[in-house]
Amino acid sequence: MTITHDTRDDQAGRARVRDDDTLRRYYDELAAVETGALWTVANDIEPWEPHALSIPTIWRWKDIRPLALRSLDLVTPEQSGRRVVFLRNPKRHDVSAVCGLLFSGIQAMRPGERTSAHRHAASALRFIMEGAGAYTIVDGHRVNLSARDFVLTPNGTWHDHGVDEDGETSLWQDGLDIPLTNALEANDYEVHPDIYQTASKPVDDSPDLFGSPGLFPATHRWDRPYSPLFRYRWDQTYEALNKAAESGGETTHDGVYMRFCNPYSGGHVMSTMGASAQMLRPGELTSAHRHTGNVVYQVVKGAGHSVIAGARFDWEEKDIFCVPSWAWHEHGNASDTEDACLFSFNDFPVIEKLSFWQEQAYAENGGHQVVES
Amino acid sequence: MTITHDTRDDQAGRARVRDDDTLRRYYDELAAVETGALWTVANDIEPWEPHALSIPTIWRWKDIRPLALRSLDLVTPEQSGRRVVFLRNPKRHDVSAVCGLLFSGIQAMRPGERTSAHRHAASALRFIMEGAGAYTIVDGHRVNLSARDFVLTPNGTWHDHGVDEDGETSLWQDGLDIPLTNALEANDYEVHPDIYQTASKPVDDSPDLFGSPGLFPATHRWDRPYSPLFRYRWDQTYEALNKAAESGGETTHDGVYMRFCNPYSGGHVMSTMGASAQMLRPGELTSAHRHTGNVVYQVVKGAGHSVIAGARFDWEEKDIFCVPSWAWHEHGNASDTEDACLFSFNDFPVIEKLSFWQEQAYAENGGHQVVES
Amino acid sequence: MTITHDTRDDQAGRARVRDDDTLRRYYDELAAVETGALWTVANDIEPWEPHALSIPTIWRWKDIRPLALRSLDLVTPEQSGRRVVFLRNPKRHDVSAVCGLLFSGIQAMRPGERTSAHRHAASALRFIMEGAGAYTIVDGHRVNLSARDFVLTPNGTWHDHGVDEDGETSLWQDGLDIPLTNALEANDYEVHPDIYQTASKPVDDSPDLFGSPGLFPATHRWDRPYSPLFRYRWDQTYEALNKAAESGGETTHDGVYMRFCNPYSGGHVMSTMGASAQMLRPGELTSAHRHTGNVVYQVVKGAGHSVIAGARFDWEEKDIFCVPSWAWHEHGNASDTEDACLFSFNDFPVIEKLSFWQEQAYAENGGHQVVES
Amino acid sequence: MTITHDTRDDQAGRARVRDDDTLRRYYDELAAVETGALWTVANDIEPWEPHALSIPTIWRWKDIRPLALRSLDLVTPEQSGRRVVFLRNPKRHDVSAVCGLLFSGIQAMRPGERTSAHRHAASALRFIMEGAGAYTIVDGHRVNLSARDFVLTPNGTWHDHGVDEDGETSLWQDGLDIPLTNALEANDYEVHPDIYQTASKPVDDSPDLFGSPGLFPATHRWDRPYSPLFRYRWDQTYEALNKAAESGGETTHDGVYMRFCNPYSGGHVMSTMGASAQMLRPGELTSAHRHTGNVVYQVVKGAGHSVIAGARFDWEEKDIFCVPSWAWHEHGNASDTEDACLFSFNDFPVIEKLSFWQEQAYAENGGHQVVES
Repeated sequence: MTITHDTRDDQAGRARVRDDDTLRRYYDELAAVETGALWTVANDIEPWEPHALSIPTIWRWKDIRPLALRSLDLVTPEQSGRRVVFLRNPKRHDVSAVCGLLFSGIQAMRPGERTSAHRHAASALRFIMEGAGAYTIVDGHRVNLSARDFVLTPNGTWHDHGVDEDGETSLWQDGLDIPLTNALEANDYEVHPDIYQTASKPVDDSPDLFGSPGLFPATHRWDRPYSPLFRYRWDQTYEALNKAAESGGETTHDGVYMRFCNPYSGGHVMSTMGASAQMLRPGELTSAHRHTGNVVYQVVKGAGHSVIAGARFDWEEKDIFCVPSWAWHEHGNASDTEDACLFSFNDFPVIEKLSFWQEQAYAENGGHQVVES
Repeated sequence: MTITHDTRDDQAGRARVRDDDTLRRYYDELAAVETGALWTVANDIEPWEPHALSIPTIWRWKDIRPLALRSLDLVTPEQSGRRVVFLRNPKRHDVSAVCGLLFSGIQAMRPGERTSAHRHAASALRFIMEGAGAYTIVDGHRVNLSARDFVLTPNGTWHDHGVDEDGETSLWQDGLDIPLTNALEANDYEVHPDIYQTASKPVDDSPDLFGSPGLFPATHRWDRPYSPLFRYRWDQTYEALNKAAESGGETTHDGVYMRFCNPYSGGHVMSTMGASAQMLRPGELTSAHRHTGNVVYQVVKGAGHSVIAGARFDWEEKDIFCVPSWAWHEHGNASDTEDACLFSFNDFPVIEKLSFWQEQAYAENGGHQVVES
Repeated sequence: MTITHDTRDDQAGRARVRDDDTLRRYYDELAAVETGALWTVANDIEPWEPHALSIPTIWRWKDIRPLALRSLDLVTPEQSGRRVVFLRNPKRHDVSAVCGLLFSGIQAMRPGERTSAHRHAASALRFIMEGAGAYTIVDGHRVNLSARDFVLTPNGTWHDHGVDEDGETSLWQDGLDIPLTNALEANDYEVHPDIYQTASKPVDDSPDLFGSPGLFPATHRWDRPYSPLFRYRWDQTYEALNKAAESGGETTHDGVYMRFCNPYSGGHVMSTMGASAQMLRPGELTSAHRHTGNVVYQVVKGAGHSVIAGARFDWEEKDIFCVPSWAWHEHGNASDTEDACLFSFNDFPVIEKLSFWQEQAYAENGGHQVVES
Repeated sequence: MTITHDTRDDQAGRARVRDDDTLRRYYDELAAVETGALWTVANDIEPWEPHALSIPTIWRWKDIRPLALRSLDLVTPEQSGRRVVFLRNPKRHDVSAVCGLLFSGIQAMRPGERTSAHRHAASALRFIMEGAGAYTIVDGHRVNLSARDFVLTPNGTWHDHGVDEDGETSLWQDGLDIPLTNALEANDYEVHPDIYQTASKPVDDSPDLFGSPGLFPATHRWDRPYSPLFRYRWDQTYEALNKAAESGGETTHDGVYMRFCNPYSGGHVMSTMGASAQMLRPGELTSAHRHTGNVVYQVVKGAGHSVIAGARFDWEEKDIFCVPSWAWHEHGNASDTEDACLFSFNDFPVIEKLSFWQEQAYAENGGHQVVES
């Protein structure tokens, strides 16, 4: 529902009680038995519109890359569990969230290193930023990680990461729903009994079996709430964006916009997090909209800018920025000759399953926000 | 997964970095660009087991009834929006939650009173405690409310409440998912343009059309994520419990245990909250278990006790108590001759849809907790 | 899609080849290698509209009741398997179908008799017409059968029937999908290893557990493609029709019209057959429509008539009649003071799952067919 | 359920009535009111095992290719609707079926020809056998057809076919569910109002948008019961088979076996028909099984044999053969150095949705049938 209605708190239907001594004494009595008067908090907990706790923020690769690399010398994977620099939304230090109830970090590994294997109720994804020879093992399935690949380590799966001896120092973005699992009091953690797991299947059997277009292993049965395809190769994703660009795949608010899907169901890749790849064609400027749900973007290719809640954020390759719930946003490609591509992950599966999805197009000013200052 | 594994934080696979001056300087540099080192927070945000933020609490009817009735003289529905005394979990004052991300309050209305109509992304339910002549209008469907009836006002529906002129002062428990909708930054609020809505359908058409066993209007189409049955009558619920008691409907952990369902799908009644009715037969003591998800209980009939996380809570009719996520709990009927009945609502739809459900039986001591102190 | 288009076979897009000697020789050559020319059969196998193989037919209770009772003296259940007089559509003697690919028969049993237990891929339902003390056992669950009850014995379940020693001679209608299972080459048959099965659960545990409005056993898991509720009591069904009549449950084409549903899913009661109960209020005459799918009606209460494909069929209590696929039909109650009720079963689950559902209202003549002759 | 039980018709639980004059007179009386005695037909319509109406048959390309080409000179598309030689199962001349309730034909078109556009409740698929420059238009989406591509024209979609002026004479196999739609009395037919439809979208926009692995247009909504991907390219299919062969995609009964799927749901490509591609690796001989459901195979690559219901059928490229419901079958590759590939289509969606699926492995003789004669 578009918010066009009267939003003054002094109208009938809102809490408009004026406190006095009698009431204050009453509130004390209520507090004594762990109760309260709804009208003292109602207007706060029932806001007129979705109210984001995070703010739009950008993390520039030129700032965070050196810090992530520095961690290589400061701690070992063995000491730290994983060598990760996480992105903290300025307003969500309390829950170590990047935006909404999502977590994001930059993980760094050297050739020959390996993290211990573990599992947890939280779901995780990776987007490979730099390096070579990295891999992830998910429940015994090893997938190799090339730059710009998108990789899953879903809820409850044993997983560990490594870089082959002959590989290169690797950096990738981790995306997790840890703040969500904690808000829902559901997270847990278990270290693999053997510390490291062994790949028990042919390397990349997951993309080999599930990564073909419109084909599924005929007798395969799958009862997990996530995709059996654990690796989405960037070369295929970029080709898909280009083909869609030629065949009517453009959208009003997001350029050419493809959702990573679970080939078994067509749905989101994991139970709590979705992910997308999008292309802004040369010179493209999308029109603004807003929606519930939170999005963390990484610039895969090119340069451009986004206007988020009235503020302009210019971005370059590998920069990471976020769009909080219900913030107006639009994206522009800085180049008139090259495309620009964004990877993003989000909490849309949560928002959709719980029936909280709302979306609204920016109607005024030709669909473009007025940038403040 | 049952938690039987090693949970020491000094083992491989956990963050075990010892801070020093170099690291502290590094942390400062990280903070300057809104980042942090995961290993400084990892063991906190990745707990070994689901970690509840709320604590087990009981609200005794003898304490809160007089306070709820007092509100009748202190504020009007017109001033307060709704005249509700809400139950605050001692550990969740920050979000006005009763348990987990659930809200609960006691609403009081006098004969002839009426609240203004509104709608919001939050879902609401009512369990009628006292009175006569109360009613709710949901999107134009009026349902009458008798004592112990369970009533829905789902996500996005226009709703208002009233008590007929010839009725009696009425009290009911409201259950909502307001803290959840705010944690997910999705709540909103709209006052009905006419302040009050008019019942446009025959009274109780919802239970008349959808409240028959195994029958559904043949040509009815329904695309909403909640039940078209808005009223579940207590007389039918109690009869269902009694029939189930005679036909194998008992469970290990919850006595005779029936879930309120959406007759259109067999699923939970609303998108984010479920509800159940259960009967402890004369002399029954259930064995303990724990699970993710939060539950708020109201005693409908009889007396008994629950042991929650090792503490005993004795309860009587209309008392309200909560069981937080992952707390061990078991229930006992105080009477050897009468049954005891509990109504409860929960966040199980959220937990289940997001794949966070875990459950564990208490294996030791014959399935019964040792009560502390 | 409504059929309003040109349906002449001499138009472009239809097969219009005129045979000659060359072609006839060609056809012989094709036949020699088990092939044929599509254009010689195309207009037949691709009809302009859905083409029913059955014709509208009524079986009058006054005719078939004595014949069904006579079988009691002529054969035993032990010899005959089951003592059933089946209804043969005049045009479907080849597959022993009553209408479409449905089967219907009248089964007769004496007090103290019992059929042997068996199971098959075919699904079965019963509608009780006369008698007392009858029962069915379905996979160990015994359900008692009162007059006008509707009972399931689904696909693959062990089932047998009997009448208690102190009961009365009982007659019921059997409805099965045998012609469908044979057309799909899927039927099978197995005699229970013990000939008779023993009821292993409390009598009527199925309706006791699953037959309450809006309530489902909370921890029950069900993975079968049919309803766990095996008995739908007539008293509850009739009450549901009356309540719906007062609350907006009327339809244009079928009076007050309720579908029996699987309480676990809200869907049809079995994988291949659905069933409904409907009430024509005093003086009611519905307007005509047609749809794909076949329906077999039994008159439960009252008297009236139906106009089917332009022919009028007057009916009384316990008469059985059928409406084939795509036949126009409308129903009228003969009484201005009493309601008339029909039970019906159908193949709608098949038609719907395979995306073959089409429906069309009769637009002319105020919605009423002109009765021929 | 495996059929290992006693299947003699003289046992208790089967119809064993011996006819006599009294009964014969009774049967006459029954027939007079369009009824019959179930025990006279019960053992026929309730067979012990699924009973196929079709028989295993092979159509050799060397026989049917010349006949299909001859049709080019004998009739025009304009006269014939479509120029199709259909494959008649020797036992299903009555319904023009190739196997079960499936239809198959070989369609021939010359460069520059075009069929008129139409739509029907029946679903259709194509597998391209020879030629170049062919295309199909489906609801305005043109897809180009290369040899060995698999193409959909689903239930209710407008479709027509053509070969570009600069193309080559083209042959393809049509697979339809026409006998099923007629058995269910649901088929219909409509000629496009403009005779020919115009491609309104970019050529191949369907595979461009929906034919990428694990990616779906992010804002696309789809409510049809069939795949939005209308063309499955052979080069991608063959690559998928090869990748699966290296990654554990082999099965016991079907070699490397991939199912064409609807990327929107992961399910079958259309509501009533599924399709698969399989590879027999060099020297591979599968072990036998049987199942409900009918399959029509086309040899895409290589040579080999199948043993079906005890008879051996040797096959070469482009031969077509069928396996009826419940017939034992196993496949062997004739080459020790080259792979052999089969395309097949089936009625599995029908069998699965209606809960009729049964499958059984051949346990004796090392899993291989003894070939008769």
